[in-house]
Amino acid sequence: MQGNWFRHVLRVRYQETDQMGVVYHANYLNWFEIGRTELIRRLGKPYTEIEALGLLLPVTELEVKFRAPARYDDLVAIYTRIVELTHLRTGFEYEIRRAQPPAHVEPGFAPREESGREGVFPEGEFLVGGKTRHVWVNRSFRPQRLDKMAPDIYRLLRQEGS
Amino acid sequence: MQGNWFRHVLRVRYQETDQMGVVYHANYLNWFEIGRTELIRRLGKPYTEIEALGLLLPVTELEVKFRAPARYDDLVAIYTRIVELTHLRTGFEYEIRRAQPPAHVEPGFAPREESGREGVFPEGEFLVGGKTRHVWVNRSFRPQRLDKMAPDIYRLLRQEGS
Amino acid sequence: MQGNWFRHVLRVRYQETDQMGVVYHANYLNWFEIGRTELIRRLGKPYTEIEALGLLLPVTELEVKFRAPARYDDLVAIYTRIVELTHLRTGFEYEIRRAQPPAHVEPGFAPREESGREGVFPEGEFLVGGKTRHVWVNRSFRPQRLDKMAPDIYRLLRQEGS
Amino acid sequence: MQGNWFRHVLRVRYQETDQMGVVYHANYLNWFEIGRTELIRRLGKPYTEIEALGLLLPVTELEVKFRAPARYDDLVAIYTRIVELTHLRTGFEYEIRRAQPPAHVEPGFAPREESGREGVFPEGEFLVGGKTRHVWVNRSFRPQRLDKMAPDIYRLLRQEGS
Repeated sequence: MQGNWFRHVLRVRYQETDQMGVVYHANYLNWFEIGRTELIRRLGKPYTEIEALGLLLPVTELEVKFRAPARYDDLVAIYTRIVELTHLRTGFEYEIRRAQPPAHVEPGFAPREESGREGVFPEGEFLVGGKTRHVWVNRSFRPQRLDKMAPDIYRLLRQEGS
Repeated sequence: MQGNWFRHVLRVRYQETDQMGVVYHANYLNWFEIGRTELIRRLGKPYTEIEALGLLLPVTELEVKFRAPARYDDLVAIYTRIVELTHLRTGFEYEIRRAQPPAHVEPGFAPREESGREGVFPEGEFLVGGKTRHVWVNRSFRPQRLDKMAPDIYRLLRQEGS
Repeated sequence: MQGNWFRHVLRVRYQETDQMGVVYHANYLNWFEIGRTELIRRLGKPYTEIEALGLLLPVTELEVKFRAPARYDDLVAIYTRIVELTHLRTGFEYEIRRAQPPAHVEPGFAPREESGREGVFPEGEFLVGGKTRHVWVNRSFRPQRLDKMAPDIYRLLRQEGS
Repeated sequence: MQGNWFRHVLRVRYQETDQMGVVYHANYLNWFEIGRTELIRRLGKPYTEIEALGLLLPVTELEVKFRAPARYDDLVAIYTRIVELTHLRTGFEYEIRRAQPPAHVEPGFAPREESGREGVFPEGEFLVGGKTRHVWVNRSFRPQRLDKMAPDIYRLLRQEGS
């Protein structure tokens, strides 16, 4: 299963650097989280609404490959897609790439961080790639069948992945 | 001295919450930093270029008042202005307010995070206010006179504050 | 009101540094939190038990002065004391100082992070000082009278401060 | 290659939780880093001294499996061992387990965070396991042969792993 790539651009924060002068490696996991959050929002369902149903989506497994470091103030693009969907589990794949500042930015103006469904292959210098697997659980961390607990969300994810 | 307010909007990250269900209080300091970074960028000089000159701007004092908590996925507006400028020191004031999602967002689309000089008074529910003072130093943390080391930056800040 | 100083030693983490090569300033707020948590634990009541009663202690105001930076792998001592106590509010004062590695450490062994009530004045190079004020609230962030909701905790804090 | 397990105990910080009420998943990477730092220190060489030689050890790959969440104020044991060593690369394996408070703690006293070479198999409830691979580089992120640049450190790691 391989859904469409979604793209979300953000700017690297000073707080995300460490004394090596690059982004501290754990912060890429925050960016992965932002990637899947924005993907789910774009499907039409903010993650806050899902949590309000009592459904949580903790990470059960992850893997990351680091090729090149992002640096302070870089614009980075987070590409995210769904690569697994069962009744209990959902899996995502990510690519972090250096983004070009948009061409239309006037001098003295900040390029806006943006979110969008590209429908195209990731572009820009490859920095970090990764995958996460998740299980749907309730507030007591008991696994829940997504197709039963929230059939509309299950359908949105299923459509996206097919 | 009181410069114009600058506005930068961002979305609260899951990682920024704590088990009280709200944003962990130290994260507002990161947002203040983003506020002054974007203000300086809008003046025409990314902070990366300033650091490339060997000039750093560490915080020497800060104070914060917390009125109401920001929550996960909220859009918050960071308002920032310059309130002090000497040859050695720069001071900023901040207001964090809940931002309204822009009216023009189509269903299923994420409101973009945005940066802009408003030239107007902060609006939206007041959450957190604060001030920071900074000293210009070199890489050995020795104080530096900004008007001598980087007269163009000094002039930009001075014009903004007047 | 001025309680006794409590001392808690910890080691600076790599993740706590930024590209200035020193501890990112917002992290001192985490250390303040650790300081007051360990103080309350030493009084005989872990903060987890207090939260289990439905009582939270969010920060309402804080101020910090930064004199010298802590660096990666430094041992730092967090000194904490109670400086305000009413039925609704509690205030703490903090000093972060560079700690000497304990004399008794054998080569190749890590000095242990330690927690202790010193009953003496803070010592070691002064790095950062600060104060925080807090209000006792319930899970809906409504203010609560500590002396009514948890009289034993109120008594412990009162005894400590007198 | 499989070195001895080293053990380092720490207490979960409030700042490390998120609104799920458990430790935010990216923080386990910080703990892995603390684990390998303390292992290297125990071998007789603080990582600060290694960086002072101009050698950095960025992560190139990692994988993590999450079984059960750590919670605020838990004592957790980080078990770390070396599982790969070439002239250019070093690999570590980790287990995060819930630690028992030491038996000797008097009421009202904090169990000390501790660091020690156990020489025994990890014990306590298994929470999270992982592996990281690293490459030795200089400040320009060019790969460096550890056996040439720092033969004493290479020897320490080699002895540990055999």
